[in-house]
Amino acid sequence: MSERGTALPSAVAAHLEAHRQAHLDDLLELLRIPSISVLAERAGDVRAAAEWVARRLERAGIEHVQVLPTPRHPLVYGDWLHAPGRPTVLIYGHFDTQPVDPEHLWKRPPFEPWIDGDRVYARGASDDKGNMLIPILACEAWLRGEGRLPVNVRFVLEGQEEIGSPHLDAFVEAHRDLLACDLAVSADGGQFAPDVPSLTVGTRGLCALQIDVQGPATDLHSGTYGGTIQNPIHALVALLASMRAADGHVLVEGFYDRVAPLTAEQRRLLHAVPHDDDRFREALGVVALFGEPGYSTLERQGVRPTLEVNGIWGGFQGEGVKTVLPAEAHAKITCRLVPDQDPEEIQALIERHVRRHAPPGVRVQVQKLPGLARPYAMPMDHWANRAAADVLRELYGREPVYQWMGGTVPLYEVFSSQLGAYTLTFAFGSPDEQVHAPNEFFRLSSFERGKMAWARLLARLAAVKAAD
Amino acid sequence: MSERGTALPSAVAAHLEAHRQAHLDDLLELLRIPSISVLAERAGDVRAAAEWVARRLERAGIEHVQVLPTPRHPLVYGDWLHAPGRPTVLIYGHFDTQPVDPEHLWKRPPFEPWIDGDRVYARGASDDKGNMLIPILACEAWLRGEGRLPVNVRFVLEGQEEIGSPHLDAFVEAHRDLLACDLAVSADGGQFAPDVPSLTVGTRGLCALQIDVQGPATDLHSGTYGGTIQNPIHALVALLASMRAADGHVLVEGFYDRVAPLTAEQRRLLHAVPHDDDRFREALGVVALFGEPGYSTLERQGVRPTLEVNGIWGGFQGEGVKTVLPAEAHAKITCRLVPDQDPEEIQALIERHVRRHAPPGVRVQVQKLPGLARPYAMPMDHWANRAAADVLRELYGREPVYQWMGGTVPLYEVFSSQLGAYTLTFAFGSPDEQVHAPNEFFRLSSFERGKMAWARLLARLAAVKAAD
Repeated sequence: MSERGTALPSAVAAHLEAHRQAHLDDLLELLRIPSISVLAERAGDVRAAAEWVARRLERAGIEHVQVLPTPRHPLVYGDWLHAPGRPTVLIYGHFDTQPVDPEHLWKRPPFEPWIDGDRVYARGASDDKGNMLIPILACEAWLRGEGRLPVNVRFVLEGQEEIGSPHLDAFVEAHRDLLACDLAVSADGGQFAPDVPSLTVGTRGLCALQIDVQGPATDLHSGTYGGTIQNPIHALVALLASMRAADGHVLVEGFYDRVAPLTAEQRRLLHAVPHDDDRFREALGVVALFGEPGYSTLERQGVRPTLEVNGIWGGFQGEGVKTVLPAEAHAKITCRLVPDQDPEEIQALIERHVRRHAPPGVRVQVQKLPGLARPYAMPMDHWANRAAADVLRELYGREPVYQWMGGTVPLYEVFSSQLGAYTLTFAFGSPDEQVHAPNEFFRLSSFERGKMAWARLLARLAAVKAAD
Repeated sequence: MSERGTALPSAVAAHLEAHRQAHLDDLLELLRIPSISVLAERAGDVRAAAEWVARRLERAGIEHVQVLPTPRHPLVYGDWLHAPGRPTVLIYGHFDTQPVDPEHLWKRPPFEPWIDGDRVYARGASDDKGNMLIPILACEAWLRGEGRLPVNVRFVLEGQEEIGSPHLDAFVEAHRDLLACDLAVSADGGQFAPDVPSLTVGTRGLCALQIDVQGPATDLHSGTYGGTIQNPIHALVALLASMRAADGHVLVEGFYDRVAPLTAEQRRLLHAVPHDDDRFREALGVVALFGEPGYSTLERQGVRPTLEVNGIWGGFQGEGVKTVLPAEAHAKITCRLVPDQDPEEIQALIERHVRRHAPPGVRVQVQKLPGLARPYAMPMDHWANRAAADVLRELYGREPVYQWMGGTVPLYEVFSSQLGAYTLTFAFGSPDEQVHAPNEFFRLSSFERGKMAWARLLARLAAVKAAD
């Protein structure tokens, strides 16, 4: 059987078919480990999950499996590198989970997985234990069925994605040789909808700032002093209002200077996404959608930059009335950035804007907050996208749509800058799966389709790269 | 001796002089009662203070003394009405105190008064036990020295001023006959400075609102959704910014329509106040004073209205970064009002402004908060002001200055609307006396001067009113 098609060798397909129940049992076992990475008292459980994953990789036939320490939770490495001349693929996923609160909203205990129809419920079912297990099982099917993999693979599976992967950057930088690859494939994420496959080709970058406005030395009585001095809240709202036009256009000087214009191809691809403004609006519960004139919702979400106030506070927030003229007021801002904006430059532009527009009578300071991320864009016609599109087209019976995620995945930028590799996201979650919320679930049908898709993808990547 | 001068009958002056130590002992005794009205566990102490005050009024020769209940703390009434044809004066003060926290900043326990030089330290020393005791002692000196008072008096001394006098309004309305008077005199307050006498002739009114902006049904991820919907914080800051020009002028349509223009006389009197902008600015710790162009600091503070945001909140207020697009944002506003603004009309104007300027994509609601107060103005040439000016001029050796307080004293409006009487504030606190703060004190010299001043005022009020 040619690796140029997406059909599987029958032994691989047979292995997957024969082990459906065993694979589900594996998933349930992993879901029972309460590996909540943010809770110090769960560190032992995160480690237990790492050990479980390491043993499972070994059982699958992956070699050189190691549980590697970081300053906090460990990560798991393993490889299979016996396909000379074939591309090397770095497979990423994570075995830690979000916390479970509010726990009382769960129908059953979040780490006692239960199955209802096509759904397996548990914290971490979709994000990311179910999705992370899939490539391990797909590799196992190849190795047990055919005795080989169509490509070289390295696994890097981590235990602290849900706390922002604080040590991944340093780990990758310190282990460039160990992680050397032609392509990264992330098993963390999902498809546009259960029946709509998708390829993620861009994520927005990020920069964050805090604005601190200091007025009088202490809170003052708004009667005795009102009218004599600048109110820090008024100063702050004037400053924030100066950053954005009423129509949503950002007014920070230079903000759009490096923004790559939307191409006709991007417009066409975004237009092809089965997105419905009315349904989107209803799902969010807003009276109307809103944003920069001249751009569609998906364009504003994916390929246009934003400046959003994430938090604001100052003065009295309790019940009733307190006649205070507050000493200070604060706001937090993040910007989502698109190619070719630079997060440090945008921080500097905002700082300059604040300096130029600071109202009189108060001291205004800008704190540059950590967490910079560059925008990321993968060429739409990259060989990995073409390979993935072939697989998805066959399994879903329709063309995948192209997604520019509004969010930021620092991982992509880490793999890009440290390893020189693009990241294909190949995962099978759906947006409705209550990720980060009570009663998270994963579809059993997605679990099955995912295994088939990954098994095919490994072969297809080799084939398309060879023809590239 | 004529009651047209401000000199005292010698028997009255002699009584005051002979009882200096006894009066100080009285004050120390009252200061030892921890009558903190806001603390439920101190209700017994507030009642003990009421009983102490009632006994002291009786000892002074005041008649019909009663401790009268309200839904919370009691108040004390007493009268002496044997001066037919003379004006009746309602004397107001309060025997409750503020809490003492932060208690560790007190040099000694706050209800164990101690004397250091010219100062007696204790919670309530200046606000208002020292000032409240003065008219009782002055009446006693007249009654013991001369067997009579130059005017009819009624005392109404309350035990819940520090919690906003929640039942005073209803009490006055229900006891209009009992409290009938030609003039109220408040013994709660102070003079401009220890060496600068003053007459308070105006206070600003008040109205309060809350603005609630609702965006999406829940907090959203600012990456995934940023750019697609209106951010409630941006909507709120745009709305608040629309209410005020950069120079501090209020832009709510109609806000200034009923504001009485500043008269040349007001300007002259305010200019005569020994106010120093530099010292004022330094004391507040601001980089510059600020407010409506064309008006001095004291004009902006006393006779011009304000619109101040007292509190604002929405989204994330913690350490670091949280990439949230918040579901809601809120702000609290109070306006200080001057004649002839109406608090309900101003609320309605702001509500209309909010309706007209509400940004798209969010639901905006206005809550009208309780605590309306009309602005209050006492004619500068009112007979009580003239009488008080005569007394102050003689005791301080200089003309009193006229003060328009920026704050709101609901009492004035209650006495004005319910009893048809203006309120003269005649008290001897100074702005430096740490009222509401640790180590509150009252000057012994102010206590002595206050007794002399009140004893003279009672006579002078009769004389000036007779000639009116």
